[in-house]
Amino acid sequence: MTTTLITGGTVVNATGRSRADVLIDGEQIAAILPPGSTILGHDLAGSVDRVIDATGKYVIPGGIDAHTHMEMPFGGTFASDTFASGTTAAAWGGTTTIIDFVVQYAGEDPLTQFALWQEKAAGNCAIDYGFHQILSDVQDSSLTAMDTLITEGVTSFKLFQAYKGVFLSDDGQILKAMQRASENGAMIMMHSENGSVIDVLVQQALERGETSPVHHGYTRPWQAEAEATHRAIMLANLTGAPLYVVHVSADQAVAQIAQARDAGQNVFGETCPQYLYLNLEDQLAAVSEEWGDFEGAKWVCSTPLRSKHEGHQESLWKSLRTNDLQLVSTDHCPFCMKDQKEMGLGSFAKIPNGIGSVEHRVDLLYQGVVTGQITLERWVELISVTPARMFGLYGRKGVLAPGADADVVVYDPHGHTSIGVGKTHHMNMDYSAWEGYEIDGHVDVVLSRGQVIVAGGAFHGRVGHGTYQRRELSQYLI
Amino acid sequence: MTTTLITGGTVVNATGRSRADVLIDGEQIAAILPPGSTILGHDLAGSVDRVIDATGKYVIPGGIDAHTHMEMPFGGTFASDTFASGTTAAAWGGTTTIIDFVVQYAGEDPLTQFALWQEKAAGNCAIDYGFHQILSDVQDSSLTAMDTLITEGVTSFKLFQAYKGVFLSDDGQILKAMQRASENGAMIMMHSENGSVIDVLVQQALERGETSPVHHGYTRPWQAEAEATHRAIMLANLTGAPLYVVHVSADQAVAQIAQARDAGQNVFGETCPQYLYLNLEDQLAAVSEEWGDFEGAKWVCSTPLRSKHEGHQESLWKSLRTNDLQLVSTDHCPFCMKDQKEMGLGSFAKIPNGIGSVEHRVDLLYQGVVTGQITLERWVELISVTPARMFGLYGRKGVLAPGADADVVVYDPHGHTSIGVGKTHHMNMDYSAWEGYEIDGHVDVVLSRGQVIVAGGAFHGRVGHGTYQRRELSQYLI
Amino acid sequence: MTTTLITGGTVVNATGRSRADVLIDGEQIAAILPPGSTILGHDLAGSVDRVIDATGKYVIPGGIDAHTHMEMPFGGTFASDTFASGTTAAAWGGTTTIIDFVVQYAGEDPLTQFALWQEKAAGNCAIDYGFHQILSDVQDSSLTAMDTLITEGVTSFKLFQAYKGVFLSDDGQILKAMQRASENGAMIMMHSENGSVIDVLVQQALERGETSPVHHGYTRPWQAEAEATHRAIMLANLTGAPLYVVHVSADQAVAQIAQARDAGQNVFGETCPQYLYLNLEDQLAAVSEEWGDFEGAKWVCSTPLRSKHEGHQESLWKSLRTNDLQLVSTDHCPFCMKDQKEMGLGSFAKIPNGIGSVEHRVDLLYQGVVTGQITLERWVELISVTPARMFGLYGRKGVLAPGADADVVVYDPHGHTSIGVGKTHHMNMDYSAWEGYEIDGHVDVVLSRGQVIVAGGAFHGRVGHGTYQRRELSQYLI
Amino acid sequence: MTTTLITGGTVVNATGRSRADVLIDGEQIAAILPPGSTILGHDLAGSVDRVIDATGKYVIPGGIDAHTHMEMPFGGTFASDTFASGTTAAAWGGTTTIIDFVVQYAGEDPLTQFALWQEKAAGNCAIDYGFHQILSDVQDSSLTAMDTLITEGVTSFKLFQAYKGVFLSDDGQILKAMQRASENGAMIMMHSENGSVIDVLVQQALERGETSPVHHGYTRPWQAEAEATHRAIMLANLTGAPLYVVHVSADQAVAQIAQARDAGQNVFGETCPQYLYLNLEDQLAAVSEEWGDFEGAKWVCSTPLRSKHEGHQESLWKSLRTNDLQLVSTDHCPFCMKDQKEMGLGSFAKIPNGIGSVEHRVDLLYQGVVTGQITLERWVELISVTPARMFGLYGRKGVLAPGADADVVVYDPHGHTSIGVGKTHHMNMDYSAWEGYEIDGHVDVVLSRGQVIVAGGAFHGRVGHGTYQRRELSQYLI
Repeated sequence: MTTTLITGGTVVNATGRSRADVLIDGEQIAAILPPGSTILGHDLAGSVDRVIDATGKYVIPGGIDAHTHMEMPFGGTFASDTFASGTTAAAWGGTTTIIDFVVQYAGEDPLTQFALWQEKAAGNCAIDYGFHQILSDVQDSSLTAMDTLITEGVTSFKLFQAYKGVFLSDDGQILKAMQRASENGAMIMMHSENGSVIDVLVQQALERGETSPVHHGYTRPWQAEAEATHRAIMLANLTGAPLYVVHVSADQAVAQIAQARDAGQNVFGETCPQYLYLNLEDQLAAVSEEWGDFEGAKWVCSTPLRSKHEGHQESLWKSLRTNDLQLVSTDHCPFCMKDQKEMGLGSFAKIPNGIGSVEHRVDLLYQGVVTGQITLERWVELISVTPARMFGLYGRKGVLAPGADADVVVYDPHGHTSIGVGKTHHMNMDYSAWEGYEIDGHVDVVLSRGQVIVAGGAFHGRVGHGTYQRRELSQYLI
Repeated sequence: MTTTLITGGTVVNATGRSRADVLIDGEQIAAILPPGSTILGHDLAGSVDRVIDATGKYVIPGGIDAHTHMEMPFGGTFASDTFASGTTAAAWGGTTTIIDFVVQYAGEDPLTQFALWQEKAAGNCAIDYGFHQILSDVQDSSLTAMDTLITEGVTSFKLFQAYKGVFLSDDGQILKAMQRASENGAMIMMHSENGSVIDVLVQQALERGETSPVHHGYTRPWQAEAEATHRAIMLANLTGAPLYVVHVSADQAVAQIAQARDAGQNVFGETCPQYLYLNLEDQLAAVSEEWGDFEGAKWVCSTPLRSKHEGHQESLWKSLRTNDLQLVSTDHCPFCMKDQKEMGLGSFAKIPNGIGSVEHRVDLLYQGVVTGQITLERWVELISVTPARMFGLYGRKGVLAPGADADVVVYDPHGHTSIGVGKTHHMNMDYSAWEGYEIDGHVDVVLSRGQVIVAGGAFHGRVGHGTYQRRELSQYLI
Repeated sequence: MTTTLITGGTVVNATGRSRADVLIDGEQIAAILPPGSTILGHDLAGSVDRVIDATGKYVIPGGIDAHTHMEMPFGGTFASDTFASGTTAAAWGGTTTIIDFVVQYAGEDPLTQFALWQEKAAGNCAIDYGFHQILSDVQDSSLTAMDTLITEGVTSFKLFQAYKGVFLSDDGQILKAMQRASENGAMIMMHSENGSVIDVLVQQALERGETSPVHHGYTRPWQAEAEATHRAIMLANLTGAPLYVVHVSADQAVAQIAQARDAGQNVFGETCPQYLYLNLEDQLAAVSEEWGDFEGAKWVCSTPLRSKHEGHQESLWKSLRTNDLQLVSTDHCPFCMKDQKEMGLGSFAKIPNGIGSVEHRVDLLYQGVVTGQITLERWVELISVTPARMFGLYGRKGVLAPGADADVVVYDPHGHTSIGVGKTHHMNMDYSAWEGYEIDGHVDVVLSRGQVIVAGGAFHGRVGHGTYQRRELSQYLI
Repeated sequence: MTTTLITGGTVVNATGRSRADVLIDGEQIAAILPPGSTILGHDLAGSVDRVIDATGKYVIPGGIDAHTHMEMPFGGTFASDTFASGTTAAAWGGTTTIIDFVVQYAGEDPLTQFALWQEKAAGNCAIDYGFHQILSDVQDSSLTAMDTLITEGVTSFKLFQAYKGVFLSDDGQILKAMQRASENGAMIMMHSENGSVIDVLVQQALERGETSPVHHGYTRPWQAEAEATHRAIMLANLTGAPLYVVHVSADQAVAQIAQARDAGQNVFGETCPQYLYLNLEDQLAAVSEEWGDFEGAKWVCSTPLRSKHEGHQESLWKSLRTNDLQLVSTDHCPFCMKDQKEMGLGSFAKIPNGIGSVEHRVDLLYQGVVTGQITLERWVELISVTPARMFGLYGRKGVLAPGADADVVVYDPHGHTSIGVGKTHHMNMDYSAWEGYEIDGHVDVVLSRGQVIVAGGAFHGRVGHGTYQRRELSQYLI
């Protein structure tokens, strides 16, 4: 087994930072040592196979992206990143674990789908991976499957308040799943938008001939998100289940979560980089030679981008400071413009929903440190520590401590990253949602379970290196 | 230098727990090692001077009590614990650092007082200690002194909205101190009660012949606390200074703090064990053979105990879960019944204000873990991690990491503690505010800077071992 | 035409009270005169046909009960009061106008139903009446019908978030109705309970063998009401439609309404006497010789009675003071125990939902004046002025002013009313939900459009006297 | 005695409007009659002395300005309107009653001052007037004086949280006055700004050489208002006294009042036209040939104008709709630029604080009706009905009903008003704060106690006509 020493850096965790060396023995962290790595007279630095110099850099636990959809079947096509391409891109960006979603559409069997997704991912991932399970149109068999899946390390289940006939469960179905979760300890994840309302608005818009991409946002107003969020919170309150709201984008939804949390309820929420940086007005204005005003399709995702004039982004950043939202995931669900997004030419409702960011999350969030919107420690907490705790990986992931997996990122605060096709862009997409972003900071070295997979501007990893992660119940409940 | 290995235990920090060994070299932690302590083939356990077996126990950073008043001159007498007796009692209870208060009364010079307190403490403490500085009746010279004191490691300054002519600063004075703090980075601590209102209520009560101890509480209603808390928050908002409200006892004051925090303001609050467990009704009912209904004097403190029928305790516990309050200190300010508390026979207004708990804080809070009100990790965060971060000690204190001071507590969750005079009670008081409390959990071993100071039910420390801690600016700001 | 003078009383309206005489000429109020009724030397008292002495009494506009269900078909039976019996009972109790509901069940045609209800009521009412229209399972034809009905004087439309397959409209349907209302100015009334959740809870309770009446309440928790209320508010916010939430019973639903109102949204709510006085614990304890523990069936209504330990009643009374709720209706929907309520022996889910109070609303609310919970003026506002304004009757009803209908109640504050079968009880029910209530105050004289219909403890009115009231759009919007 | 009939108009009160004639006999309203004024065959129109045709116009109760300072001694000068000039200007603008303030500065005797103000006003007013009493630096003798003054019809007492040494009472003094008010039923009015904070900010600004008028606003930040408002609310809560906050200008102060009202506390607030229309940025930009950038002095008032970018005006208008604020007064306190405002050349702190609007309040508020921000009924409520109820004048004032004083305004919604010196401007000021305002609506006819005092664009009243109004306790408490 290879031994590695990361020396000279500043180790950062959720509560503070310190100068320390990180000693890796095989796949795990062996010890956290004082700078210099001499212990009781033993010079450990001298006996390791490899020394990584982190002088002037941050040494942090590898990023955990708790919300990705690799090769997801959706709207007649598949998300354009395979587990192979998507996890490779993630690695480039300092993410060493993803939690992807097993998809069970209405009418399908959860356990069959879980087996299918295990098969899809096995041997195809460059980094470690776990699964949440989507439960659509919850039936009694799904409730039973929850218990089984927990023993398989799937301890979180995503329900939908939108996408009728596809994903949606009605409130009674959600109630039953939450009742079960309150017994078996699972986390209920929720896509909180009122689908019934949105379906009507979409139909009305199309009938009025409003077909361009920006109408995707216009037909998914903040009220639909705030409403569904409160509804999910009330059902969770009634049952006692912990609730995690995915991809929060509206200030008013944040307010609902904050209020429930103030009252002591186990309610959590994530946001995504797109909601922190992109907006509806830019989507409206987006035009290209190739796509005309369909250019805005590149930013079609759900929940949608929101108006910059309504204070949503300020609210989201604030919530990251105040811990009203607890983590940042990507909801990585990439589609190419060609052949995929363009299915929606003539009707925004047919544009596959999704943005690809798995490669850029760590960097994009670091900009919050650069601008003073979050502290360095909070950055690490948002991208790694809390995702691990929230979803039962902490101890193994999300922390630099003896016995933990040696998933480590050496981050250079003085580096620079240029995002865009042909620049930093390893995702399987023919465009970047972040084209032209010039970013302070740079992912220098990435280790996954003790192996250097990114260093010196090159990928040294291997598809197939990644292993399935059985997860515990959430370690974040109060 | 002695080397010590704490082996077999479960190391607990704010974000999680793990099986790990803690290696101590001299006064600092040398490394966090995997269970078994073998690193790269080196069996470190074999080469240490001393091994402490923590099997089945928690290994946590030593407790930090951020609010004590050793030998404080108050009301014509002195708090009955000297630095020697008080820090020894603290050690017995798993607290390895206190932050005491330099007292500057109206008319005194801050720097002179700081020197005086340095002298009082030097060579007299069994554990490490730092100082906050009380600034009374703030003058321009006090503002200048703030800058100086920060260079001396005093980075937090306590102001009072009560005790006119003694401690009180008016709002304009508070404003000036906060303006200065917003420049020099200091933390403003606040005793938030409306003294002007309380003075009237006290006078009126005495005129009505209401002299017994419980009237201390009746004349300090929650409105006086909620009001002053909001006032302090508004002044902090205006200036940008960080604010830390001490000894929060009223639900409505918690609500003010929570609201400011939701809005993203750097506002913090502590509560104390007495507000979590004791109440006004019991104080009213307290009678003893020796003291009659003056028995309630033992629980006279400010802010006062509050009615159990108004939901304050439920609110305080909830706030500890939701992080609306961030830490638990004692406001340790002991007075004996004999000669001291009894000064208030005939007038509650002459009872020296204070309760002694420095010895019991760690144990009392652990009961919240036992009853499920807080998690194990939250317990460690409340008693050690956050106090360190809040007051600029983190890295050296409040964490088990290489380079940190080896302040460590081995806590036995299966142990038991009986509190009371003649039982567990090493404070210099002729009574215990906690008489009769039978507590789950036990402080087994305490190390201060690498030295075992409590073990095997005996004190092995030494008055004079404790050193002054220069503190950084707060590491907890968002 | 008969002329009447009500003399010597204190006229009370929403903003104040004054000594004044009320002169009635035929069906309308002719003038409000100074005490003594002499105008410019004309002694008007001398020339009227009839003088009613109101000395020492209150003279108020007749009560308006904005929520009744006479002879409503429900659950395989009919509400036991016909328009004849129900409006007669109403008259006894000082109510001179009801607004009943045209019922359109799923699959029925709104306009046909409206014609049917007009037929049912025509010639059968002792007092004036108007109609709201229930719209179930909203279809496009219902939207068109709304416009037509408004021209017929039906300006408010009740939707349901519960009773799937019977009344319920899904959120998209509600959205469409609200969009229409925002255009045509109609008021949307909402039965706000989450039916999907309740259906599951009911089924689960029955499966557990929990069949007794109190389980009706247990399976309709406050979360189901608070949730649906917020949902309705968000949809109204999205569309701009005014919203009126019926029979609010939960503190948390009040809070949602209060929050929307603070934000300036046109959201309103009513509560009913049963929620102000009755509770779930008494329902659980109710036992009779005849019915055993099925006695509680007498209090089965929806929303249900709530626990007295959760603060709902205190919240409702407070909301009546603060105008967070604006009026008090009865939701009068009586069923006899014999043959009707007893359909639910063996399953609470089969108990017809409803309580009869149309006769007692004015008296029961007056108790709030007696106990100091509301002012005299607020009483008049709640029972008459605001109902008139809210539903477009003001000017003709709800006020004592020249040209208004002479619907007048002379109320004796020194009188007394004993409620119960065989005592004050003219509703067609074999029990009273208010059996044994001994009430301060008494309805002395009631005039409907100038005719004395109750006086001297006797009914002098006539079934058929009541006329249909075309209503304007709401006069209460901000 | 003269008899008058106002015929053909639309009578508007707080709850609705109707076509009606108003019959006046001498000083009081004799009756409210149906259009046409024929009663029981008596044609009353034929026998009156005078008929006023109000066809197409609104007939409303005369405006009540509950906050004026005629000839107030302040800052070394006197408010430039005498009771004579000020009440005449008020009449021009449709205001028929003012409630002015007896000024008791620190050290003066309240009763002596009351006598002095009675003397000042007696025989010098064109319209009716009452008094609030200012209590500065509250002493025990002031508490006794409160009881006496209530018997004299002074039932509201204004305290100050600002202006140390002049008006300010400390919190203990305020507490005592509120305790007394909770016993004798008086309304406590409060100037809520934290004077201690403001004094420091002013001094610091002057030391920095910031002397121009806009710095008046910069040194009275919203935090100072929100803070003091909450403080006053807490003291009122503690004592049970009703509280009325004067000249609310900050959104955050509104929020405090709204929160207290939601909780059911008797807390009220007024705003003034200047806060609804004027702003700090315009004050900063104000420049004239005569005064240069001292031009902004014309808008120096306390509380100050606030930034238009912070949402204060939107919040104030919303609060007028939601009844979070209950009425609009002027705080009329005029000073000329020449000789008076110019005392502050060189230091904004020496500019006499005040704006004159007593003539324009009714018109300015009517613009809210024109723009749809308030309803017609709400306008009448804000300018007349609620002021009367709030301050114990209702029945005699604030309503059109038999026996009420015949204070009536005929308002022409199709009229137009041009405000400015040389245009509509009868106040004794050498400038208008509202110069250039072109206003929809016009005060056509004004009657005070049955006498036409304004009509046909001419003043027909008489200084000395106005009488002192003894006021009852507030009729607005819940």
